[in-house]
Amino acid sequence: MEKITSIQNKYVREVRELSRKARARRQSGFFVAEGERLFREIPPELIAEVFLADSFSGTLPEDAGKYEKQAFHTFICAADATQMGLNACGIKSKHAKARLFRVSDSIMEAMSDTKTSQGILAVCRMKEEGLPAGSLYLVLENIQDPGNLGTIFRSAEAAGADGIILNRGCVDPYSPKVVRSTMGSLFRVPFLRVSEISDAIERVKEEGARVLAADLGADESVYRHDLRKPSAFLIGNEANGLSPEALRLADSRMRIPMKGKIDSLNAASAATILLFEALRQRL
Amino acid sequence: MEKITSIQNKYVREVRELSRKARARRQSGFFVAEGERLFREIPPELIAEVFLADSFSGTLPEDAGKYEKQAFHTFICAADATQMGLNACGIKSKHAKARLFRVSDSIMEAMSDTKTSQGILAVCRMKEEGLPAGSLYLVLENIQDPGNLGTIFRSAEAAGADGIILNRGCVDPYSPKVVRSTMGSLFRVPFLRVSEISDAIERVKEEGARVLAADLGADESVYRHDLRKPSAFLIGNEANGLSPEALRLADSRMRIPMKGKIDSLNAASAATILLFEALRQRL
Repeated sequence: MEKITSIQNKYVREVRELSRKARARRQSGFFVAEGERLFREIPPELIAEVFLADSFSGTLPEDAGKYEKQAFHTFICAADATQMGLNACGIKSKHAKARLFRVSDSIMEAMSDTKTSQGILAVCRMKEEGLPAGSLYLVLENIQDPGNLGTIFRSAEAAGADGIILNRGCVDPYSPKVVRSTMGSLFRVPFLRVSEISDAIERVKEEGARVLAADLGADESVYRHDLRKPSAFLIGNEANGLSPEALRLADSRMRIPMKGKIDSLNAASAATILLFEALRQRL
Repeated sequence: MEKITSIQNKYVREVRELSRKARARRQSGFFVAEGERLFREIPPELIAEVFLADSFSGTLPEDAGKYEKQAFHTFICAADATQMGLNACGIKSKHAKARLFRVSDSIMEAMSDTKTSQGILAVCRMKEEGLPAGSLYLVLENIQDPGNLGTIFRSAEAAGADGIILNRGCVDPYSPKVVRSTMGSLFRVPFLRVSEISDAIERVKEEGARVLAADLGADESVYRHDLRKPSAFLIGNEANGLSPEALRLADSRMRIPMKGKIDSLNAASAATILLFEALRQRL
């Protein structure tokens, strides 16, 4: 295992760039995933570099048995073994090309996007984007809050959505806060980034889905729609809702019934309600 | 209008204390609400002090007509008028005792909890806590994330919940990030803070509500429960779910059906799904 001692090290600088700059991510095709729990969710083939703080021991070796088949254990052991010229864990690894580094705790803090680093951080390749054939999609227009986007990924996975399309105005799904708040759903829910909202809508129509716009001003309630049919929910920006263009291109508009003196739901809440109403109708 | 020029001013120091320390809020009974949109949601009788940055012009005077009846306009005009010895807006005010201050932009930045202040900040009295008679409640155990708690307040209002009970382990609902993320629902949804989760459950049982624990391990789906009856949903901590005590005291456990390789929903998403399922059944 290599030891990094300087904050000026090129790998350290690379991580900081990837954390901070969407452009650096876009140009390189790599991003940063932090934290032990999230690390275990990364498909091993996407892991390019792993950085461990000196103080990091993780759940190894005490819990090694428990996580033997999980990426965490596999990778750490395999990388260690490869670099030490051993195969200490007896696991054949596809990841011999991934690199493992130890860094001081202060360098880890400098690399970390969080206030208190958990001591483990990985540089990962982006997965291939695409939208599989299916019957439940989300189309997101200008979703800006990283926590909202992360929550939407989690809800989409839990409700069995087949994919998410994001237009260019959405926050980068590979930004560190989004990656963290997806809790691993980022790796499992197929998604596709397109430039214009019109491209996004066209794409789900190609899949045969009806495009249903969540709109406070709509007459018909979501609960009156038959969501067993192939459906794509169109969710707009937190402050401004959907654009006139998105509303115009939708096949239908629907509202989520609400009480109280309130003018909108949180965007992730709205997406979650719609996704689970589809799940409920399909049970 | 008084002008504050020093960061050492006692009002400025008070705001910083109230922003940062739950204890300062608890002992004083005051808290801080920031931002123009949120400001308009504050019940005028709760406003004690208002701070405007030099660069703040807000929507006044251009939009004055539009907001004439809203707290924002009423208060700003009334306070200005009172302190100038005039009644420029012709509005009789209950708020003559509230104080209005101008501060430099740099002092406002130092007072603000946000990265970029919107230039308006109020010190508010806490409203009276309590739980009205009703038929739909949330009981929150150790909800830690401010954004989650804020989202839960918004969803609770939108779904027509009658009140929220929080145990001692929850994040302070008057912390700045919670206040902001409720988007004003904090002022409109009745809530009650209690020490133990057992007190919280007892309290909603007094209202005749069945206590339904959201639990991944439960056999029965929420969609098989009759939520038209008086109901209280029990929502647990983001990482650990509900405590064994909370599960034991609940009348019934239920799960939200899920697909995918996922072990939980975001806590606010779970609360939102349950609240809107109750709303749907009651339509």
